[in-house]
Amino acid sequence: MMSAIARFALGIVLTFVAASTAFTQTDPLPSWNDGPTKQAIVSFVEKVTDKEGKDYVPPEDRIATFDNDGNLWAEKPVYFQLLFAIDRVKALAPEHPEWNDKQPFKAVLEGDMKTLAASGEKGVAELVMATHAGMSTDEFQQIVSDWLATAEHPRFKRKYTSLVYQPMLELLDYLRDNSFTTYIVSGGGIEFVRNFSEPVYGIPPAQVVGSSIKTKYEVIDGKPTLTRLPEMNFINDKEGKPVGINQHIGQRPIFASGNSDGDYQMLDWTTAGEGPRFGLLLHHTDAEREYAYDRDSSVGRLDKALDDAPGKGWVVVDMKNDWKVVFPPQE
Amino acid sequence: MMSAIARFALGIVLTFVAASTAFTQTDPLPSWNDGPTKQAIVSFVEKVTDKEGKDYVPPEDRIATFDNDGNLWAEKPVYFQLLFAIDRVKALAPEHPEWNDKQPFKAVLEGDMKTLAASGEKGVAELVMATHAGMSTDEFQQIVSDWLATAEHPRFKRKYTSLVYQPMLELLDYLRDNSFTTYIVSGGGIEFVRNFSEPVYGIPPAQVVGSSIKTKYEVIDGKPTLTRLPEMNFINDKEGKPVGINQHIGQRPIFASGNSDGDYQMLDWTTAGEGPRFGLLLHHTDAEREYAYDRDSSVGRLDKALDDAPGKGWVVVDMKNDWKVVFPPQE
Repeated sequence: MMSAIARFALGIVLTFVAASTAFTQTDPLPSWNDGPTKQAIVSFVEKVTDKEGKDYVPPEDRIATFDNDGNLWAEKPVYFQLLFAIDRVKALAPEHPEWNDKQPFKAVLEGDMKTLAASGEKGVAELVMATHAGMSTDEFQQIVSDWLATAEHPRFKRKYTSLVYQPMLELLDYLRDNSFTTYIVSGGGIEFVRNFSEPVYGIPPAQVVGSSIKTKYEVIDGKPTLTRLPEMNFINDKEGKPVGINQHIGQRPIFASGNSDGDYQMLDWTTAGEGPRFGLLLHHTDAEREYAYDRDSSVGRLDKALDDAPGKGWVVVDMKNDWKVVFPPQE
Repeated sequence: MMSAIARFALGIVLTFVAASTAFTQTDPLPSWNDGPTKQAIVSFVEKVTDKEGKDYVPPEDRIATFDNDGNLWAEKPVYFQLLFAIDRVKALAPEHPEWNDKQPFKAVLEGDMKTLAASGEKGVAELVMATHAGMSTDEFQQIVSDWLATAEHPRFKRKYTSLVYQPMLELLDYLRDNSFTTYIVSGGGIEFVRNFSEPVYGIPPAQVVGSSIKTKYEVIDGKPTLTRLPEMNFINDKEGKPVGINQHIGQRPIFASGNSDGDYQMLDWTTAGEGPRFGLLLHHTDAEREYAYDRDSSVGRLDKALDDAPGKGWVVVDMKNDWKVVFPPQE
């Protein structure tokens, strides 16, 4: 049993702990300007975590899903994974003399982005298969790590993993501090994103949903190996996002965040559920600090989702006006 | 700052907390008989959680995977999901008069298990597609819930979800208490297992890996819907288990538990990794309390894995001798 002195002393300790917690929690989103967007996010989180309120959601149902390209990190001039594939083609070219006369490899080696763009989805798929398959899963992770450690963005001259959005990092932390489980749901490759999701976003590999190629289990020289095959397994984009979420998470999110029409179905699936729901749509409006693009962009096109956001109740983030900073300070 | 009295009082409180924790942790596996099997499990857990030891594994890498059928719950006379499909065929038969003359449905409706067995994998696949597809994911969850709430096992006259192995429930708890993340990696249907994994095993939907059929996202009458299609997506068995683990978890487990040759590759993939690893193989040796079967069983055949266990260092559980009880007390 606790003595009266012990109870008194414990009271002091707990009061001190409570006071310092309240102090540090004054602004969970310091890089977001005060205004309706930030207010909407905070109100939602307070609502679903209020045990006495009618909108309370138990922690195990607090699932939040985030698109990656253009939503957690930048996606211009083109998806960073495509820049990885381009660098990889250049690195592998000496072993593939036939690429000098074969599109889209020829275009990549000559730096002819116009011809590469004209090769369309089929051309990109060929690049992906030539650069992402044919090795073990372990070897692929090493290749991606090496690239991310050295490659630099053409405009910002920074590593790609530093071109993440500081306000979104704070939002991920804020949600997790309120017992949300945060997932990435990306059109990009699941193994590519997993390479940096934990150190950069605090999201472990199992909480990454993405596109994938097939892998094959085989025992090579007595060693169990997973080999990456040049064959699509799943495209986690548009209608694929709710399918991927269901397959991987098995629960409908209550919070979804995206920035393009590729995220439309994820937001619609999320916010059509019963009870409190939140859809967040990032609008790139800041040509000076980052980029300004929407309806006419081939990368990250935002058109129908922007039209339908008001009717669906999705909150649109105006990057230029809602964010105090875009990227974290340069290391 | 804390006063001397407060520090003293806090010391008393913490000592009390530590003492009661130590007291409750005396036997984490009370349904396991003392002996080499239990000792091997406890030694492994103590080793990987000892921060000062050479075999320490950080919590984020403590991934444990468990087969379900015959490993966490029983699988005789046949997989419980097949019994679900059989009951479902009977329930749907009035809407399908053509089934009276069509195999394998005719065999099911006539209770002719011999003919059903002879229909093989192709016949079972037909049953699965007819009973597991054509509805929304939400509707399917309701159908499974209703069945599990009422159906009874033919021999034990208990609900299927009560035919789980008490020693394995304790093992799951023990691993989680030591900061392992526990996954089910089942040849059974992912959505079927997810229906009961959280209340029965304490494993949330996102930590279930299983076989699956394809789903399609569509907006029906303005309502986003995931519809289950009669088409295989992935078979999470044998070579499929390491593939499913990589796709879903993105990390190699350090602990894997199975009971049949269908788990061979999962155990091999797990224990071939570097650092401390543990492979656990449940041998059904208890005809009285449960079932005794191995090399000649069509359900849950255990042959090659039993031969190779000693060479691979896998620990074999002898159900009859290692377990004090098999099932939890009847509710």
